[in-house]
Amino acid sequence: MGGFFTGRTLADVGRDLRSGDTSATELLAHAFASIDADETAGESAGENAGENADENAKKLNAFVTLDREGAEAAAKQADKDLASGVDRGPLHGVPVAVKDIIDVAGLPTGMGSAHFTGHVAGTDAACVTMLRDAGAVIVGKTGTHEFAYGGSGDVSVNGPVRNPHDRERMSGGSSSGSAVAVAAGMVPLALGTDTGGSVRIPASFCGIAGFKPPYGAIPTDGVFPLSPSLDHVGFLAGSADDCRIAYHALVGPAEAAPAEAASAGAATPPADNTPRVAWIEPESADPDVVRAVRALFPNAPAEPLDLFELRRIFRAIQDCEAYDIHADRVEAAPELYQPPTLERLEQAVRTPGWRYVRAFRERDEFARHVAGLLERYDLLALPTMMMTAPKIGEVEGPFGRYAPALVALTCAWNVLGLPALSVPAGTVRGLPVGAQLVTRRGAESLLFDMAARLPSPIPG
Amino acid sequence: MGGFFTGRTLADVGRDLRSGDTSATELLAHAFASIDADETAGESAGENAGENADENAKKLNAFVTLDREGAEAAAKQADKDLASGVDRGPLHGVPVAVKDIIDVAGLPTGMGSAHFTGHVAGTDAACVTMLRDAGAVIVGKTGTHEFAYGGSGDVSVNGPVRNPHDRERMSGGSSSGSAVAVAAGMVPLALGTDTGGSVRIPASFCGIAGFKPPYGAIPTDGVFPLSPSLDHVGFLAGSADDCRIAYHALVGPAEAAPAEAASAGAATPPADNTPRVAWIEPESADPDVVRAVRALFPNAPAEPLDLFELRRIFRAIQDCEAYDIHADRVEAAPELYQPPTLERLEQAVRTPGWRYVRAFRERDEFARHVAGLLERYDLLALPTMMMTAPKIGEVEGPFGRYAPALVALTCAWNVLGLPALSVPAGTVRGLPVGAQLVTRRGAESLLFDMAARLPSPIPG
Repeated sequence: MGGFFTGRTLADVGRDLRSGDTSATELLAHAFASIDADETAGESAGENAGENADENAKKLNAFVTLDREGAEAAAKQADKDLASGVDRGPLHGVPVAVKDIIDVAGLPTGMGSAHFTGHVAGTDAACVTMLRDAGAVIVGKTGTHEFAYGGSGDVSVNGPVRNPHDRERMSGGSSSGSAVAVAAGMVPLALGTDTGGSVRIPASFCGIAGFKPPYGAIPTDGVFPLSPSLDHVGFLAGSADDCRIAYHALVGPAEAAPAEAASAGAATPPADNTPRVAWIEPESADPDVVRAVRALFPNAPAEPLDLFELRRIFRAIQDCEAYDIHADRVEAAPELYQPPTLERLEQAVRTPGWRYVRAFRERDEFARHVAGLLERYDLLALPTMMMTAPKIGEVEGPFGRYAPALVALTCAWNVLGLPALSVPAGTVRGLPVGAQLVTRRGAESLLFDMAARLPSPIPG
Repeated sequence: MGGFFTGRTLADVGRDLRSGDTSATELLAHAFASIDADETAGESAGENAGENADENAKKLNAFVTLDREGAEAAAKQADKDLASGVDRGPLHGVPVAVKDIIDVAGLPTGMGSAHFTGHVAGTDAACVTMLRDAGAVIVGKTGTHEFAYGGSGDVSVNGPVRNPHDRERMSGGSSSGSAVAVAAGMVPLALGTDTGGSVRIPASFCGIAGFKPPYGAIPTDGVFPLSPSLDHVGFLAGSADDCRIAYHALVGPAEAAPAEAASAGAATPPADNTPRVAWIEPESADPDVVRAVRALFPNAPAEPLDLFELRRIFRAIQDCEAYDIHADRVEAAPELYQPPTLERLEQAVRTPGWRYVRAFRERDEFARHVAGLLERYDLLALPTMMMTAPKIGEVEGPFGRYAPALVALTCAWNVLGLPALSVPAGTVRGLPVGAQLVTRRGAESLLFDMAARLPSPIPG
């Protein structure tokens, strides 16, 4: 914890940059210094007496590739542009990290897998082009759960990414490195992807904000697919407001302006402008986690929603689409997969096709039901996770196997393609907890507005 | 053979109706007389001495339900309307038959299955509403291969539909009764459905015209689904021109006017206006059938197309979607299926989901390839079937099992959603053969224009 960007918002950074108190080049140097400090974490372990010494010695392992040269050139250009009056907006000169399943031209895209050792991207992914157009400085690539196919973040040829709140615990994934790079203050913003919760899961476990825009809002061209019907590009940042800023910087006001909330069929907030929030009670979850999040929405009426069924639908869709993507690799070189990934693929191949077809019909039914809910309410609220971060390497816990349990409360919103935001909701036994907000497509601003209204979380 | 409408086109019928030489009520009486004559086919069997006497005694079995009362009321109304100057166009007062998987309000929709015994439709299917709006008189429901899930037409709780050219042979299916009702002159026009060839197969086997419009051109609401990504509503009539008339009567000139052929990207025919035709050579087929059809396109250059791969794609899509539709029935009452249908479903359930996903990706590749072909050519030509009609009850022939062999040359155009027309191309050993024409979506008129240009088929 405690990198340069800890406690610094994008607004802070932008103000310092434009006042001349700092420069893009200086911001980048701070980013690299914070990143490098993690590399030498072992050397400072002696400072911590007692049982945690070994644990703190382990590096967080957020990054898999750094692009010092490219980033420095981009930072210099950003400084030059700003000096000559070219201001690309709130991401201008800001150091940003990119998940290692997203192509950045000239850098390896490793997917956390031995299958892609030495694979270098020829062109930028569409979302990276959007980042560069917005003036961002790309510092490097962050660790991912192998092929983004898992929510724990500890399955990768690059080794586990560790949780800054407890280095023996999972960061969450699959956008593990992106979440940890932000949580540890190495960068103020990172790109992730989210197929079943892969932005929100590590955001919740690491105590930061994670935003999954509505399906298709940010193009996935140049992003290695996991399940194209469910894949989303999303953001990890220190706060909901920074997610908003990044989202608007990339898709522009035309796509994400507050005015959209007032689209046809949208609910009209009551006169006092308090958003109407429905509480979705998880079927099973750590009661302390539920209590911490519920405390933020004390007056929200509970509405039933069969998240278990939605997860079944999620699973059928993801299984079939993921196996399609991987079939040839499983055939040719199964030994190159991390064993848990291969095990998942060997399960996935067994899903019969009619279950996939049925899943989409069932999805349509749920979509109608939830559209009805979102006529009566502006927002749905629920915990992001059933639990706090488990120990690295654990595959089963009090809620069954983690592979399904980690996505239990997040994957519904991938199935439905709705915008979803995870924001810090305090801690339970010293570990971060996230509150999840969901709304209609086009009403994303309600998420950020609500996050700004939330009371301070109850101390854990 | 030789019902009232044999040799009478829709233009003939319309002219006689408007000149006062006949009335809708009279036309309907002719239709019912021709239908009733088949019921008493056995009584006239004595006329035929020799070995065919028994065969000719068997009724064709085209219809499963007749709506004498409803049809008579509709015919009377049509006569009244015409007398008072209300002319609904070329289908006004024309007796039309409807396949028994398409809902007609107040009549049973039986699907050829014991599962739907006693099931009566509450409302008209969209295509039936369109027929009625065009003034057509619906005489009844025609036999279908059980659930439209097969191309032979001899698997149904209602018994096999017989080929008028040889009553021991398959009519082809699944729109078996609709094809036979037209081929036997009982009605001049019938509605069918076509998921892998179900309009064109029986058209070819029975020596009439069958037209499958492009995907989605006619809505499938109220039609029992077989495989929603492949299902089409289509027409069976005595000639290509009658298919054109019926198509335009239902979707109107805005959807199907000749001007559409000149849409963006469409090929420009050469100055002499001769459409440019490419010949698609079947990989394996009865050489006499191929020769008969090829003779109609002597100068068309052959272009390669992997119809075998397209059939594999077809099969993966149909398997998964059909099983989704039937899963609950297979679970609850498998014994109500005809054994061949249950066998197909038991195969279909085994198709893994990733194969379904992959099939759509492969379809997109083929669609690009064929779009390229249809920039260089106006039309593709090939036989409709690999063979002439096999004997009823045969499940295997010289080209392997009939279940896949019957759709070998037709299902590609369902996968690609392209308009396809089967027209009579003479006979081989006394049995009808069909030529199949395919074009771009929106260029349907080219199909009908080309059919009008075809030389007279070489006598078989």
